[in-house]
Amino acid sequence: MLKAPKHQVAGHLASDGKLGPLVDDLGRFYKPLQGEGRGSKELAFYETFSSDTRVPDHIRKFFPVFYGSQLLEASNGSGLCLHLVLQDIVSGRINPSIIDVKIGSRTWYPEASDDYIKKCLEKDARTTTVSLGFRIAGLQLYEGKESGFWKPGRKEVQSFTVDNVRSVMRRFVSSDSSIGNENPDCSFAPTIYGGPAGILEQLLELKAWFEDQTTYHFHSCSLLILFDKESVLKGSTPVAEVKLIDFAHVLEGKGVIDHNFLGGLCSLIKFVSDVLSESKASSIEADVESEKPHNCTNNGNCT
Amino acid sequence: MLKAPKHQVAGHLASDGKLGPLVDDLGRFYKPLQGEGRGSKELAFYETFSSDTRVPDHIRKFFPVFYGSQLLEASNGSGLCLHLVLQDIVSGRINPSIIDVKIGSRTWYPEASDDYIKKCLEKDARTTTVSLGFRIAGLQLYEGKESGFWKPGRKEVQSFTVDNVRSVMRRFVSSDSSIGNENPDCSFAPTIYGGPAGILEQLLELKAWFEDQTTYHFHSCSLLILFDKESVLKGSTPVAEVKLIDFAHVLEGKGVIDHNFLGGLCSLIKFVSDVLSESKASSIEADVESEKPHNCTNNGNCT
Repeated sequence: MLKAPKHQVAGHLASDGKLGPLVDDLGRFYKPLQGEGRGSKELAFYETFSSDTRVPDHIRKFFPVFYGSQLLEASNGSGLCLHLVLQDIVSGRINPSIIDVKIGSRTWYPEASDDYIKKCLEKDARTTTVSLGFRIAGLQLYEGKESGFWKPGRKEVQSFTVDNVRSVMRRFVSSDSSIGNENPDCSFAPTIYGGPAGILEQLLELKAWFEDQTTYHFHSCSLLILFDKESVLKGSTPVAEVKLIDFAHVLEGKGVIDHNFLGGLCSLIKFVSDVLSESKASSIEADVESEKPHNCTNNGNCT
Repeated sequence: MLKAPKHQVAGHLASDGKLGPLVDDLGRFYKPLQGEGRGSKELAFYETFSSDTRVPDHIRKFFPVFYGSQLLEASNGSGLCLHLVLQDIVSGRINPSIIDVKIGSRTWYPEASDDYIKKCLEKDARTTTVSLGFRIAGLQLYEGKESGFWKPGRKEVQSFTVDNVRSVMRRFVSSDSSIGNENPDCSFAPTIYGGPAGILEQLLELKAWFEDQTTYHFHSCSLLILFDKESVLKGSTPVAEVKLIDFAHVLEGKGVIDHNFLGGLCSLIKFVSDVLSESKASSIEADVESEKPHNCTNNGNCT
């Protein structure tokens, strides 16, 4: 009944015979507690957070629902292991396009061990974490029935430059998102990034909370952006979602805002709004073109 | 005619016989070009920035006016030396209270040398830079005619904890800001931090620009907050100002926002708005107290 998730884009995969998360058909996601105390820290976070009355309802929707913990057979056959029981956030979606963005210009925190800090610092400087305030940790873009998903490997994703990230953010909302297309049309940007329920509005809602909340500092946490390309093509209301996951390194805020997360979030917001403005500008241009009378050249001289 | 500035709170002081900035009586500030290429980088920044038409007028007021460069006798007697000629931002103020805040959760940048990065990283972790996203680099608080200024030494300022920073932000706007007063009244908060021309509004104006501008990345730059306590006591319109200084480490933004500066700025904004809300809450409390009929105890029972 439990199986490896079909749409996991980062982290350890149970499908490789390793210890990894499992899902059921009822919309639940079972995440084995990670080693070195990370798993118990993440469990403690979910327990505190789910009963924290200071968290507004409209912010809770950005987090997976927490159903507790459960002993289950581990995916690598090592026997019983405690799992977090969470909402499977891609349950019900057929072919979701997903980007996993690790937020923050640093993934370490002063309380960690020197070794951990050194390892993080090196990776932060090697990826776009330092320069952009975030890095893409994984992704899958649905291209269509024939070609399926573009899902680059871990090494390729980790070598993404700023320009690669910009390109991914455009291809994510383009009708032809294949890697060969050097000029993706961003035709889904107005419906997926834009609009009252779009990604940009959701990110701005989250940002407003981060400007004020001083309870939690989210280190090395991921922000997922996801939607179904097919539902947009079918004309059904597209449901684009923003979700936060991975809370093994959440620390107490102690009265200070999480400026590391907030800075990275603002940088991501600027990327999304840039794609949106460009797509609006090019659609106005296209409108102007299509309204021109026939047989007229670009400078308005009729032939 | 040139002399050492009276109200410099951080950096090298010409008054110690060292190479440092000088001022004249006409409101100009002469800053000798710093060594190791910093001075020429700062000059290049001022030249680019002062003619950059993308910078809106309402943002320009946060920067000292740039008048060019000039060869002058250095303050340490070492002969002629090129100086930046800038607006003296405290010119005309009698006894300004000033806080110099170095913004950003890191003062280094990947392009710098390993030694420089290491030195910065150590200092960032030792001060509040990593935890708060900013650190106080210097300050002077005017206490009154008799006691003059509280101007702690460099070592004391560098050892400030998060709690010390919070206390300084409160004492900065209190009628009795002396160190012995453990419960500063924040009585100037509504006029200095609050109001349409107050510090908070100015910081929010700056923040809106940083959410959008992708031209400049301000590393290790200082934000000054200043006002005259005496002008508030006299009842004249208080002019609280926010100014940015020190641009030896400004790099090109290359289409990415300065999330490092922005995150730190948001953290500072939260500190300022926290002091403001507390002072509003306590003044409402005081009003309620003063409206109670005489001879009534706190729980409303009349004696």
